[in-house]
Amino acid sequence: MSVGITKARELGVSTVGCASTGNTSASLAAYAARAGLRCIVLLPAGKVALGKLSQAMFHGADVFSVRGNFDEALEAVTALALDGELYLLNSVNPFRLEGQKSIGYEIVDDLGWKSPDRIILPVGNAGNISAIWKGIKEFYDAGFIKEVPRMTGIQAEGAAPIVRAVEKGVDYIEPVENPETIATAIRIGAPVSAKKALRAIYESEGLAETVTDDQILSAQKLLARREGIGVEPASAASIAGLIKLLDAGEIDKSEHVVCVVTGHLLKDPNTAINACKEPIEVDADINALSKILKQD
Amino acid sequence: MSVGITKARELGVSTVGCASTGNTSASLAAYAARAGLRCIVLLPAGKVALGKLSQAMFHGADVFSVRGNFDEALEAVTALALDGELYLLNSVNPFRLEGQKSIGYEIVDDLGWKSPDRIILPVGNAGNISAIWKGIKEFYDAGFIKEVPRMTGIQAEGAAPIVRAVEKGVDYIEPVENPETIATAIRIGAPVSAKKALRAIYESEGLAETVTDDQILSAQKLLARREGIGVEPASAASIAGLIKLLDAGEIDKSEHVVCVVTGHLLKDPNTAINACKEPIEVDADINALSKILKQD
Repeated sequence: MSVGITKARELGVSTVGCASTGNTSASLAAYAARAGLRCIVLLPAGKVALGKLSQAMFHGADVFSVRGNFDEALEAVTALALDGELYLLNSVNPFRLEGQKSIGYEIVDDLGWKSPDRIILPVGNAGNISAIWKGIKEFYDAGFIKEVPRMTGIQAEGAAPIVRAVEKGVDYIEPVENPETIATAIRIGAPVSAKKALRAIYESEGLAETVTDDQILSAQKLLARREGIGVEPASAASIAGLIKLLDAGEIDKSEHVVCVVTGHLLKDPNTAINACKEPIEVDADINALSKILKQD
Repeated sequence: MSVGITKARELGVSTVGCASTGNTSASLAAYAARAGLRCIVLLPAGKVALGKLSQAMFHGADVFSVRGNFDEALEAVTALALDGELYLLNSVNPFRLEGQKSIGYEIVDDLGWKSPDRIILPVGNAGNISAIWKGIKEFYDAGFIKEVPRMTGIQAEGAAPIVRAVEKGVDYIEPVENPETIATAIRIGAPVSAKKALRAIYESEGLAETVTDDQILSAQKLLARREGIGVEPASAASIAGLIKLLDAGEIDKSEHVVCVVTGHLLKDPNTAINACKEPIEVDADINALSKILKQD
């Protein structure tokens, strides 16, 4: 987002904006505040996780709750941008991808200047998979790495236009009218970077796979309880996808796999709490506590 | 927390625990999950911010909601520890401070191996101010820095036993019976590291000051809207304290000051949302949106 905001300042615009399932708006609102720019965000009404909403609002964005889904919000904000009302900073803006591609650089850097065999990531609006592939290809072309990873995109069962396109082997998507999943960050029916994402998957001989909400939630819990890593549901989709593809034999156990999980658990605290049993209320009394602990 | 957990594993304990206003339990739950240890946390009922609660629960801790305040919860968990039920990982455990002191190292490192003139930080259970001072002194004794910062602790008006002690010039606190503040992370009446914190303030010729909840919330908003940095109320206390001490002429504008703000906005999303006006609900319609934007 910092690259996009830098561009906005270069252009001398006073207002930036985006449609968002939450994460883009949280990021844009914070960067816009720092840059002293007005920020307008359009969110699908009632479908944005609490944490993200609090970030956009608290960093002072003008938040509009749009009666419709993300795709309709994106259409509306695009129209506003074309009307000159704001500078659009969704990932349809190429400067966004220039920043996002550095995730690809970072992966290679963290692995000691080697490419993993595969990168698995959740796919919503499809900016990340497109951008990471761009970064990887640049490093490959520059001779920094000798191999490239298979780009593997995971979508929620109820919002999987890219997986459907890969199943058919085509390079275009049929938008999903009413996308639905608990993973709000990838609840998108008409990904704006669909063509680029499909190219990334095909060029890298990657895969695309769906996961159910149950698989997402169970991967989210596994990651939190076994690894101590707390992520929001959308991010857990990459782990759920890894498990499914391993079970199906599509991924080999010997592969060196990187899963991208960029959304923190705190982005969606309510989903986390709803997945747990309520705390036991007790008196601050050692005997009572001792007894309960021994029962377990 | 990683140092504390490492110690717990060395000792071969199976269960770790803490009392917490939220942040310690969130951290302990995640580390304990990674280490494969059972984790028991005691939280004051109804007084823990949503994000932190979601972390403790989702990382699989056994969460007990104690009818009482933090100080009573700490007393209860200490009794459990003395009974051998768990290994206590509040900052009364010296291995916790060994980890926390590295914040002092980091500050010096980040400033190019120089000490700032002053470090300002929120003071709740008083582990951080004690630990950071320990780290700073170690660097001073080793000759890495030639000066030391004035350690400046900020407490909420309704939970300020350390500030009261400094006002009287004594090295002990009188516990606050019913501590109260919106900054839940420092809502503590009987800080366990009070003596060490007072020593840090006196030795460094520092200060202690109170701030009101209104000052905290306004500093929180300022930081989010001017700097793009989202913190929870307790962390904003350090900024509120800086503003108050500058206004009072206690801190000079020429001083090089570091404020510690370690708690993210997402730790307490509800307080953030309550401080903002509600999003405007609109149709995904360019004309309607355009009209509203022009009105502003």
